[in-house]
Amino acid sequence: MSARYDIAALKSRLGGIKTEDNPALVRQKSRDFYWYSPTLKRQLDHVTADIIVSPMSEAQVVETLAACHALGIPVTPRGTGTGNYGQAMPLSGGVLLDLSGFNAVKDVALGRVVTEPGAVIAQIDRQTRPQSRQEMRLHPSTYSTASIGGFIAGGSGGVGSIRWGGLRDAGNVIRLKVVTMEASPRVLELSGDDLHKVSHAYGTNGIITEVEMPLAPAYDWVDVIVSFDTLREATEYANAVGEADGLLLKQLAVVDAPVPHDYFLRHQKYLPRDKPVAMAMVAAHAVSSLMGMTKRFRSAEVLFRSDRMSEADLKGLPPVFELGWNHTTLRALRVDPSITYLQVLYPFPNQVELVERIHARFGDEVPAHLEFVRFDGKVTCFGLPLVRFTTEERLEEIMAIHEEMGAPIFNPHRYTLEEGGMKQTDEIQLAFKREADPDGLLNPGKMIAWEDPTYDYRSGKTFLFRGLSEHAA
Amino acid sequence: MSARYDIAALKSRLGGIKTEDNPALVRQKSRDFYWYSPTLKRQLDHVTADIIVSPMSEAQVVETLAACHALGIPVTPRGTGTGNYGQAMPLSGGVLLDLSGFNAVKDVALGRVVTEPGAVIAQIDRQTRPQSRQEMRLHPSTYSTASIGGFIAGGSGGVGSIRWGGLRDAGNVIRLKVVTMEASPRVLELSGDDLHKVSHAYGTNGIITEVEMPLAPAYDWVDVIVSFDTLREATEYANAVGEADGLLLKQLAVVDAPVPHDYFLRHQKYLPRDKPVAMAMVAAHAVSSLMGMTKRFRSAEVLFRSDRMSEADLKGLPPVFELGWNHTTLRALRVDPSITYLQVLYPFPNQVELVERIHARFGDEVPAHLEFVRFDGKVTCFGLPLVRFTTEERLEEIMAIHEEMGAPIFNPHRYTLEEGGMKQTDEIQLAFKREADPDGLLNPGKMIAWEDPTYDYRSGKTFLFRGLSEHAA
Repeated sequence: MSARYDIAALKSRLGGIKTEDNPALVRQKSRDFYWYSPTLKRQLDHVTADIIVSPMSEAQVVETLAACHALGIPVTPRGTGTGNYGQAMPLSGGVLLDLSGFNAVKDVALGRVVTEPGAVIAQIDRQTRPQSRQEMRLHPSTYSTASIGGFIAGGSGGVGSIRWGGLRDAGNVIRLKVVTMEASPRVLELSGDDLHKVSHAYGTNGIITEVEMPLAPAYDWVDVIVSFDTLREATEYANAVGEADGLLLKQLAVVDAPVPHDYFLRHQKYLPRDKPVAMAMVAAHAVSSLMGMTKRFRSAEVLFRSDRMSEADLKGLPPVFELGWNHTTLRALRVDPSITYLQVLYPFPNQVELVERIHARFGDEVPAHLEFVRFDGKVTCFGLPLVRFTTEERLEEIMAIHEEMGAPIFNPHRYTLEEGGMKQTDEIQLAFKREADPDGLLNPGKMIAWEDPTYDYRSGKTFLFRGLSEHAA
Repeated sequence: MSARYDIAALKSRLGGIKTEDNPALVRQKSRDFYWYSPTLKRQLDHVTADIIVSPMSEAQVVETLAACHALGIPVTPRGTGTGNYGQAMPLSGGVLLDLSGFNAVKDVALGRVVTEPGAVIAQIDRQTRPQSRQEMRLHPSTYSTASIGGFIAGGSGGVGSIRWGGLRDAGNVIRLKVVTMEASPRVLELSGDDLHKVSHAYGTNGIITEVEMPLAPAYDWVDVIVSFDTLREATEYANAVGEADGLLLKQLAVVDAPVPHDYFLRHQKYLPRDKPVAMAMVAAHAVSSLMGMTKRFRSAEVLFRSDRMSEADLKGLPPVFELGWNHTTLRALRVDPSITYLQVLYPFPNQVELVERIHARFGDEVPAHLEFVRFDGKVTCFGLPLVRFTTEERLEEIMAIHEEMGAPIFNPHRYTLEEGGMKQTDEIQLAFKREADPDGLLNPGKMIAWEDPTYDYRSGKTFLFRGLSEHAA
C-alpha cells in the first residue's frame, strides 16, 4: 500500500515531528471499537494506515497537513480510538494523525475550560475538579480513555445528556479551532452555529486543534440501582425521574433482565436475574428527593446505593456510567462474543409505549437497554439494545422492524456519517468540506455526500466506499 | 378586635420575645402586595393583626405557638410580606408571626445551604457567592426583599424556573423543619415527598423554622433583550431558546409591545414602542451560543446586552429579572395604577399557538407577558399578562375566556390556596393540618378544605371566609 503514497518524502518533510511506521504499531493505531459490529468487523478488519504522525502542537498539525496536501496523502485524525463505527479508521491508508499526545489543559475558568484536542476527558476533570470543583458536562462511557477532540468529532452525547442534551445542542461546545487541509492550511475559530460545520464530522473537513468546553459543578455523584417487576415500570420510573427538573442527575439508564445479572459481573451479587433495573447517578444532595420519588413506584426496590456502602464493598466496582452507554455492550461482549447492538431513538412523547411494544415483539433476542436524555428540550430515551446476533440479514431485519414501528435507527453497523446518522446529506458539513478540504484528503470514505453526490439514501443498500475495496485489493 | 383574644395574657407569657402592638406598625406588617388585585384590595384592605410577635429562634417559635394554642389566638406567619395574594395577611386578627429577624445562614456546603426561615434570598447569596461561588437556584423577582421561608410557603417558582422547574419539583427543596400548633408544639423534619405537606401551604399547617435548599453555580449572568416584529416570533424564539438543553439560562420572558417601552422606564431608550421583546439571563460562557441561535430568527434584533455596556451605562438599570414575573406588573402599576394582571398556564405542547390565539382575541386590553419555565420536564410558559382593568365582572370574564380557550388560570385575585391553585382540596396538606394544627389556629381562612369541607369549587362563586366578614364587622 505504501506504493500509493510517497511516505518516504513525507517523513523527510516532517523531520521535527514524531512518526511511526512499524506495521504492527500502525495497524494497532488504525482501529477503534468497530468490532462491536459483525458487519464492520467484516468490512474494516484489514484497514490500516501507512504511517502514524503524532503532532504535539498546532504548528505541527499545520506542518503535517501542508506536507500531506503537497504529496496527496490522505489524513485520518484519531484521538484515542474509542469510537465504535470506524470513525478514525483510515479507509484509504495514508497518514493516521495521532492527536493523543497533543493534550494539554490550557485554561480553566468559571464555567469553561480550554484544552488541546488529545486531552482525555478524565484527565481534564482531574485538573478542573481540585482547582475549581468543576467537571465536564458530557462524556462517553469511555470517560477514562476517550479524548475530547475525538468525542466532539465522533460522538454525540452520553453521560450528562440527561441533564444537558447532546453535543450538537447550543452551549455544549463553546469554541473550536480547526486547521484546514490546503496548500497553506488556515487556522479557523468557530463558535455559535458555525460549530455544526465540524462537530460529529469524523474529521472529514478539518482537524480540531483547540476546544473550549463548558464545565458543570463537580458534585459528589451517588450511584443508585433500582429494580422493578417489569420493563414497563422501569421505563416509566426513569421517564418520571428524568422529567423531574429539579433532580440533579448525571446519568439515567434502564437495562432489562437478564442483562444486568448476566453481564455486570462485578455488581452481580446485587442484581437478581429476573429484574429489569434503572441505574442513575444523582448528586449527593438530591438522593433524598430521588428516594422520595422512588417510593411512588409500586415494585421499586433499591438494590444499590453507593453512599450507603463501605469503601471495602465499593472497591473494584465500576461506576454505574461504566455499566451504561456502550459499556453495556462491552460488558455483554466480554461474556458472550456473539452479541452486538443497535442504536435506536424512541421519539418523545411515545417513548414509554414504544419501548414496551418493540421489546415485547423481540423478547430476549433484543434485550432492552435505554439511555434517558434531554432531546430538543424534552426527556426521551435512546436505545442501545443488545442483539443476540445470528446473521447480518436478521440484524438488518430487526432494524427495519424498529423503523416500521416508529423508532428510527442510528445504524452502528455503518462507517459513513450519513448511514450512521440522519440518512441524508449534511449540507453544512459538505459545504465546509469544499472550503476546508478541497482535495478530499481528510478521512476519505466517511462522507457519502462527498464521495457520491448522487447517492440514494433510500436505496436500502449499504454504501461501499470505492477506496476501501481498492485498498483491500 | 383585641376583645376577641387575650393579648395581654399573651404578652405576659412571652416575656422574652419581641412583640409590637402599635396599631400603625401592626397594620403595616399585616399586609403584602395584595393591592395588585382590585378584588383583594376591596376584600382585605381592613385586615390587621392584634399584635406582632417576632421570634428569633426555633425555641421562641415553639414558645409562641404553645402560648397562642393555650389562649386560642390565631397565628399567621410572615416573612417579609412580598406575596401577592394576602398569603400572610391575618384574616382573623390575632398574632402576626414576624419571622424576618429569624434569618441566619447556618451552613453552606457544595450544592446546599441551611438557613433560618427569615433569611432574605439575596442575603443568602451574598454569603454563598464569595464563599463557594454558589447561589440559590430559584427566587421570585422580589429577590432583594423576599425571605426564603415565605418563598417556600407562599411562592411556586420564578427566576431560575426555566432551568430547574418549580419549588414543588423533587430536588428544589431538600429539607424543612416545621413546628406544629399544639399544646406542646413538635418540631418535625420533612424531606422527599413529605415536603409537599407544607410547601405552598401559606403556613396553614406548620411554621417553617429551618430550610435546606440546593445551590447552583453562581455564574456571571448576562442580561440580553431581543426584539421581534411579532409576538408570535418572540414566543417561538423564547420557546426554542428554552428548549436548548445546553444553553445555560436563568430567566426567559417575553413581553408584548407597548409594555416594555411604556413601563420599563429605566430601559426605555433601548426599547422601541412597537416591538415585543424576549428578555433573558444567560451565563457569560453561553452568550455566543445564544447569539448563534438568535441569528436563526428573521426579525430578531439584539437591543441590549449587559456584557457590551459600560459601568456608567449600566448604572441605575435594574437587572432583567426585575423586569419579569411580578415586577412586570409592579412597573406597569407604577405608571398606570388602574392596571392589574392574571396568572395563566399555556399548557405544553400548544403554548405558542395558544398565546397567539388568546392575545389576538384580547388585543391591548390584555398585553402578553410570558415567563418560560420547565414544567414536568417540558418547556412551556406561564402568562402574567397585564389587564387594563375596567370592572371585576370583566376581569372574571377575561379569566373565563382563557379557561374556555384552554389556558388554566391560577387566580391571583383570591386569597385561598384552592382558588389560587388547583381548585380542589389538597388532601396531603389537609391531612397534615389535622395533625399539626388540630384547632385550626394557623393562618385561618386560607384553606377552604378546612373551613368548609363541603365547598363546591365548581360553583363559580368566590369563597368568603366567615372569619373575615365577622372580623370586619
